[in-house]
Amino acid sequence: MSSQPPVLTPEHEMLNWGRLILDGVPYADIVGARDRPSDQGWFEYWMSRADDYESLGDECVRTAHTLSAGEYFYLAAICVQYAQFLWFDDKRAHGQRRKVELYRKAAPYLTPAAELVELSVDGTPMPVFLRVPDGAGPHPVVVLLGGLESTKEESRLMEDLLLARGMATATFDGPGQGEMFVHRELSGDFERYTSTVIDYLVSRDDLQSDAVGVLGRSLGGNYALKSAACDERVAACVCWGGFADMDSWDTETPMTMESWRYVSKVKTLDEAHVHVHQALETRDVLDQLTCPTYVLHGMLDEIPSAFLETLRQHAVNAPLTIVVEDEGDHCCHNLGPRPRFQMADWLADHLVTTDDSPAKEHADG
Amino acid sequence: MSSQPPVLTPEHEMLNWGRLILDGVPYADIVGARDRPSDQGWFEYWMSRADDYESLGDECVRTAHTLSAGEYFYLAAICVQYAQFLWFDDKRAHGQRRKVELYRKAAPYLTPAAELVELSVDGTPMPVFLRVPDGAGPHPVVVLLGGLESTKEESRLMEDLLLARGMATATFDGPGQGEMFVHRELSGDFERYTSTVIDYLVSRDDLQSDAVGVLGRSLGGNYALKSAACDERVAACVCWGGFADMDSWDTETPMTMESWRYVSKVKTLDEAHVHVHQALETRDVLDQLTCPTYVLHGMLDEIPSAFLETLRQHAVNAPLTIVVEDEGDHCCHNLGPRPRFQMADWLADHLVTTDDSPAKEHADG
Repeated sequence: MSSQPPVLTPEHEMLNWGRLILDGVPYADIVGARDRPSDQGWFEYWMSRADDYESLGDECVRTAHTLSAGEYFYLAAICVQYAQFLWFDDKRAHGQRRKVELYRKAAPYLTPAAELVELSVDGTPMPVFLRVPDGAGPHPVVVLLGGLESTKEESRLMEDLLLARGMATATFDGPGQGEMFVHRELSGDFERYTSTVIDYLVSRDDLQSDAVGVLGRSLGGNYALKSAACDERVAACVCWGGFADMDSWDTETPMTMESWRYVSKVKTLDEAHVHVHQALETRDVLDQLTCPTYVLHGMLDEIPSAFLETLRQHAVNAPLTIVVEDEGDHCCHNLGPRPRFQMADWLADHLVTTDDSPAKEHADG
Repeated sequence: MSSQPPVLTPEHEMLNWGRLILDGVPYADIVGARDRPSDQGWFEYWMSRADDYESLGDECVRTAHTLSAGEYFYLAAICVQYAQFLWFDDKRAHGQRRKVELYRKAAPYLTPAAELVELSVDGTPMPVFLRVPDGAGPHPVVVLLGGLESTKEESRLMEDLLLARGMATATFDGPGQGEMFVHRELSGDFERYTSTVIDYLVSRDDLQSDAVGVLGRSLGGNYALKSAACDERVAACVCWGGFADMDSWDTETPMTMESWRYVSKVKTLDEAHVHVHQALETRDVLDQLTCPTYVLHGMLDEIPSAFLETLRQHAVNAPLTIVVEDEGDHCCHNLGPRPRFQMADWLADHLVTTDDSPAKEHADG
């Protein structure tokens, strides 16, 4: 492996404050993490914050302050996410269970509520959270895909942007993610899980079967491309900080490589390399991608921008909107809310039809 | 003056990131301010960010992305606020005008929109922004009072918390604040301006005349106490990081003293001291305060906690809910969203009546 990056601790590697803040972690808690006592670990600090927020949420349920209850339980869940997300021992498993538990407590109190739908694939349970905007449907719907260590519980603020623009949202964990990790490691058929969710969504009267979008972040961007390529019901696709293949394995940081190994359930990094290289290849299906596709790439991302050339070469049948941010890091978390507004608006342009502004009028703007 | 604090630059004195973030300034822009080129001033940096956000908003108006337009114009206004807020030369006047201009552009695109109502007091124009929640009224309404350098354009995120809980919101500038500063310096009759706003609010069919609250932050907390004491139509009062008198002048930082001088339109700090001491005295009216009153005080605030004793001594006819945060700074901006949720919930408890949870059931919780 060339140009070996410096060895980083999980804490240092994860200090992308932009990501934490845009996912909803309070700045006050980030300051608290920075200034925590020297004998308190990163994991312990955030788990303790989660406990505090859960207690506040419980009290709010008791006093019928339901809006705040939802906020506190969500804050608790997001604190746990960033407690555990780069550990690969008992902390990880414990954190994942806590996060699931806390988000389930938040779900009924969010606005709109997150409805828990129990689906399955090959007998493997696949809980899905569905949020539907107020008003007469049927509504367009966007399926949000998590990444290497993000799960269905952390996209609430992005969901809120979509909901405000008239789109329902669905989140789930696929192979290697969140609740599904105990049943299935990362695998090359994520798109089957997406399609099972879409099967369900198009069966609902309150959702619009011809206006289903997918939006995937980081590794989820890879899954979004393949899911959209393999399921013609997908009407719009957003690849947010994603990639088309694993040719750039050597540029990954050590912690990320370890994370690949963990979700692949293999013993060595070499095995992980082989596994993810096979599982995350999309070039063979990209010519089947035909729906409008929005790709956001930050030039400061570790993911090489060669990805964009790959995409242009292989996704020849899809109208591509490629947005390159010269100053953007991975997923452009360092650029504040703007890139998220722009993805939400683009999806609305392609999925939401209104009397005075038909969908696609603003396409590719 | 005893225990003279160190002389601070405006930038260092204002580096309360908790405040900026909770008012809606993107963390990415705060990082940008910290890392800006050495030849770019604080004021220039933030004015430039505001220009960028305004351009994004203009583009969104053009492409009918109205939700994002509102977000960008608000971001522009809040950047200008923190560009200008501790300068006392042309930058201040220019910044105030820009902020007014930008917030007026945001107003129609906020959800719900901010309606501009033109009132006046003694011939002095007093623009008021009113936001009314969706749904059948009449709605309770909370009048938000700005402070020493905050104005009607910056409370949008607090308004959103109130609106989500079923309360309308009204904001305006009183003597010494924002747009009114050119007409009137800080004066001892702020409550007349509050009452003029309430006159208007109770005249509206969509607002509930027996459910009017006031919420004031910092100096606005002082105004809230006096406004509620002097107008018996106020049904609930929140004093958020406020104070009852100016006995603690000597503990103010140099920049804050200069700010008092500026808004008082006097030449010297001694004149300012005399002026604000007279104008901000509430002890003579606090026995008229009879409505439920919530007081939030951080023990790390420069405002001495002796204020709480003053309040208990003089506000003997009001049910007081005094919340003391041992780790809280001025207005508890360093504690994240929790204190704001709690104020919003308390106001809902006292102003919002619902079928299954009558107002006041959760009072003083």
